[in-house]
Amino acid sequence: MTKIVLLGAGNVASHLYKAFKHCKNTNVVQWYNRSINSIKPFENEVNITDQLDQLIEADVYIVCVSDDAIETLTSALPFKDRLVVHTSGSASLYDIDKKLFRGVFYPLQTFSKSVNLDFTTVPICIETLRKQDYKLLQTLGENLGCKTYKVNPDQRPALHLAAVFVNNFTNQIYRIAHEITERHGAEFDILKPLITETARKIQDVSPYMAQTGPAKRNDKKTIKRHLKLLDNEHHEAIYKLMTSSIKKTHNGR
Amino acid sequence: MTKIVLLGAGNVASHLYKAFKHCKNTNVVQWYNRSINSIKPFENEVNITDQLDQLIEADVYIVCVSDDAIETLTSALPFKDRLVVHTSGSASLYDIDKKLFRGVFYPLQTFSKSVNLDFTTVPICIETLRKQDYKLLQTLGENLGCKTYKVNPDQRPALHLAAVFVNNFTNQIYRIAHEITERHGAEFDILKPLITETARKIQDVSPYMAQTGPAKRNDKKTIKRHLKLLDNEHHEAIYKLMTSSIKKTHNGR
Repeated sequence: MTKIVLLGAGNVASHLYKAFKHCKNTNVVQWYNRSINSIKPFENEVNITDQLDQLIEADVYIVCVSDDAIETLTSALPFKDRLVVHTSGSASLYDIDKKLFRGVFYPLQTFSKSVNLDFTTVPICIETLRKQDYKLLQTLGENLGCKTYKVNPDQRPALHLAAVFVNNFTNQIYRIAHEITERHGAEFDILKPLITETARKIQDVSPYMAQTGPAKRNDKKTIKRHLKLLDNEHHEAIYKLMTSSIKKTHNGR
Repeated sequence: MTKIVLLGAGNVASHLYKAFKHCKNTNVVQWYNRSINSIKPFENEVNITDQLDQLIEADVYIVCVSDDAIETLTSALPFKDRLVVHTSGSASLYDIDKKLFRGVFYPLQTFSKSVNLDFTTVPICIETLRKQDYKLLQTLGENLGCKTYKVNPDQRPALHLAAVFVNNFTNQIYRIAHEITERHGAEFDILKPLITETARKIQDVSPYMAQTGPAKRNDKKTIKRHLKLLDNEHHEAIYKLMTSSIKKTHNGR
C-alpha cells in the first residue's frame, strides 16, 4: 500500500484525489492546502491540513501547485530525504528543494474541474533521479490504470509544448470555427462529427498521411473564395498562416 | 425505392456507393465515370458506364466530381428536368446546368479512400430550389442513417470554410506537434489521449468554456520558455499567432 500526501487543491490535485480514492494499493493519508477551505468538504474522508509542520509520513508527496510555487513550497517542507514529486509539464525537476528525493509525475491530459475524466486514458510522464523512485512512481501510475512513460529533461518540456499545440491551439481553432458558423447563421453542431473524426483518424495514421483539403491540393480557387468569405482580419491571418504551413509540409513551398 | 445514378469515382463517390449498397430503400442503378477503369471492379454488382449518352433514368443523379468539373459535366448531360445534385461544400448550386432540377447533397465529413467510415455519423447539408427535391434528398440522407440539415447559399460555404479550420488546420497542428516531439526524441503517441479528450470535451461544452493553458492564463513565463524551445521559425510564427488569438478571445487583448 503506497501512502500518499497530496499538496494543493487545483484541478490536477482534485482529479488525482478522486482517482487514488477508487484505487486499491494506494492510500491518500493526508491532503494539504494553503487555504483549508478548498479541501474542507473532504475532512470526513481524509486527514486535511493547512500547516506544513503537521505533514505526516508518507511514501510520496505529490505537489500539485502552480509552477512558480514549487520552489517555495518544497523549500518550506520540514523534512528531508523523502520522495517529493511535482506534476508540472514544464517546471524543472530541480525546482524541488535538493534536500528531498526529487521526481516528476506529469499526467499529460486536460483537466477541468467540471468535466469528469476516465483516468485510465491519462498517460503519466515520469522523471526521477533515483531508480527506486522511478519504480515507485511507475507502480503508482499503473495502479491508476495509466500508461507510464520514462521521460528525460529534454522530452518533458517538448511534450508540454506539443500539448499546448494539440490542446489549446486546436481548441482555439474550434473556437474560430464557432465564430465563423455563428457569423453566417449556421449551426456549429454540424461540425462536431468532423471534429471527432479528425481526432480519431490520427490514432491510426500519421497527421501527414491524414491531411486533405484545398491547401494540400493547392486549390487556389477555393482558397481565394475562403479568403473572400473571411471578414475578420484575425481569422484571415490564421487562415493564411495555416494554409502556408500545410503547403510547406506537403509541397515544400 | 429511390433510384440513384452516381457520377464520379473519387473518395466521396466510393463512400456513398458503399453506404447506399448497404441501405434498404435505395438502389444505385448505374455508376458513371469518365474513365471506366476506376469502377471496373464493380461491374458485377452495378451497371457501369463511361458514356453520358448511355445514362439511364433515375430519381436522382449524384455528381461527385471536382468543383471545376461540375459545370462542364452537367451541361453535357443528355436530358433535362431531372434532379441532379452535387456533393461539394463550396461550389454553387448554380454551377449545375439550368436545364436540370438542381440541388446540393453535401456530406460534411473527411473521406479517405483507405479509412472506413461509419456513415451514420455524417451530417448531410441539403440545398434545393424545389420543395419536393428537398424532401427526396432528406429521405435519402435519413435512409443512410444520417442527420440532415437544410442550409442556404450563405451557410454552406461558411460551413465548408469552418470545416477547413477544424479538419485541415487542426490536422496541421497535430502535424507540428508530431514534428516537435520527434525533434526532441519524444513519442507522439503520448499526445493521442489528449487529442481525443480535446475533441470530446467540446461535444458538451463550448470551445470558449473548454479553453485552458498558458495563453488563456497569460502565463508569460511559460510562453517565454516555449518560444525559447521552438527552433523552427515557422512553428514559432504559429505559436505566436495562436497565443495572441487565445488572448484576444479571453482577455480582449
